[in-house]
Amino acid sequence: MSSVITFYDIPSKTPGQAWSPNTWKIRYALNFKGIPYKTVWVEYPDIEKVSKKIGAPPTNEKPDGAPFYTLPAIYDPSTNTAVSESILIAEYLDKTYPDTPKLLPGDTHALQRAATNAFLPGGGPGLQFAIPATHRILSSASEGYFRRHREPLFGKTLEELTPTGPERDVEWAKVKARFNDVDKWLRGGEGPYFLGKTPSFIDFDVGARLYWYRTIFGEDSAEYTDILSWNEGRWAVYAEGLKQYETVTV
Amino acid sequence: MSSVITFYDIPSKTPGQAWSPNTWKIRYALNFKGIPYKTVWVEYPDIEKVSKKIGAPPTNEKPDGAPFYTLPAIYDPSTNTAVSESILIAEYLDKTYPDTPKLLPGDTHALQRAATNAFLPGGGPGLQFAIPATHRILSSASEGYFRRHREPLFGKTLEELTPTGPERDVEWAKVKARFNDVDKWLRGGEGPYFLGKTPSFIDFDVGARLYWYRTIFGEDSAEYTDILSWNEGRWAVYAEGLKQYETVTV
Repeated sequence: MSSVITFYDIPSKTPGQAWSPNTWKIRYALNFKGIPYKTVWVEYPDIEKVSKKIGAPPTNEKPDGAPFYTLPAIYDPSTNTAVSESILIAEYLDKTYPDTPKLLPGDTHALQRAATNAFLPGGGPGLQFAIPATHRILSSASEGYFRRHREPLFGKTLEELTPTGPERDVEWAKVKARFNDVDKWLRGGEGPYFLGKTPSFIDFDVGARLYWYRTIFGEDSAEYTDILSWNEGRWAVYAEGLKQYETVTV
Repeated sequence: MSSVITFYDIPSKTPGQAWSPNTWKIRYALNFKGIPYKTVWVEYPDIEKVSKKIGAPPTNEKPDGAPFYTLPAIYDPSTNTAVSESILIAEYLDKTYPDTPKLLPGDTHALQRAATNAFLPGGGPGLQFAIPATHRILSSASEGYFRRHREPLFGKTLEELTPTGPERDVEWAKVKARFNDVDKWLRGGEGPYFLGKTPSFIDFDVGARLYWYRTIFGEDSAEYTDILSWNEGRWAVYAEGLKQYETVTV
């Protein structure tokens, strides 16, 4: 049995290509802390079964009130503990591995929670673009599940979801407006990250979103290159700076 | 001419009774820092004129694109500087008075900005209750202006605005849900404040909202006593702890 943390992530159809903005927060975190881990890839339909098996608690409720299980989750054999929900995993890692760089340094715990709540609330704008693009990179084991669970949320098929023509410009401008807000928060600081030169949890949240867009739209896509040009290239600096934490240990 | 900071606040019909959740953030801040100041009370219709006179910049745009002036604003004769918008005033005070307790301590600047954005976004829920109650405490010089500017935002008269019956319960539950979110952010911290035992800017934002409710609904009102009972009395502790910064220096 392995003595390192098991990190549960959602695969794409490209082997070893992690993509989820939710799980990337924790992959960034583990790499940043230098905590050894191995990845177990879990297709969407298996998340509940795997979570129950390792004892990771549900993170939400389904519309019918039944428990809802999500990734990221980790299992740490050194403490025999399973943790789900990214902020709780961040707290666990800071507490259990006190000699590693802090995700929630000093007393910023509550502020980090509030800040992640302010960044792209409710999934944020741009989902009409990102959800269909995500569906295209999923493996056959997940794509049907993803479609069945996402289409009712929007009341549209994935093919109908992405706006076209002038509506596309309006919706894309909302994505830009949200990044403008975050740019405003960061102005006046030392940068490039929220707390200065060293990233913390909120930066991995922002970075995970950028990573998601890079993966699903493509590095040379109109969408991703547009984002990197916003706010005097702030997001290009961000994405570049976080690359050192992007190793996918499998 | 006075050598202390002039703090521009919005009066109520009770002399010396400050109430605005926006300006209270800065009154708390000045009291917390122990920076001497005097209050100049500015009725709503005079805010633009006074702001222009002291050179405080507009903080927003009117629907027609014209500059929009708001309070709080301060004028500091020691640097001959006028500052408007609460977060900018907080930054100014920290920078100009480095020997006073910090509103944005350490590197928390960007996180504080994000957190205030997460707390009651867009004015937050509960405005249907708070706007009519605010109108009732305004002086005759402001109440007409307030009515003319608020009613179009809601498409209702102030008298029609506050929900009744089951709708009231639904809307009030949204206020509670928002405080539940903030409670969640604060859990696991040392407390009672975001950064622990010492308040910082975000706490004065939360505190100013509580002060507003206390003033417009009344300390013994059903609304305010309900709020103080939420989240195991967290807001009662908050409100009590901030009382030491509630001196209204006129």
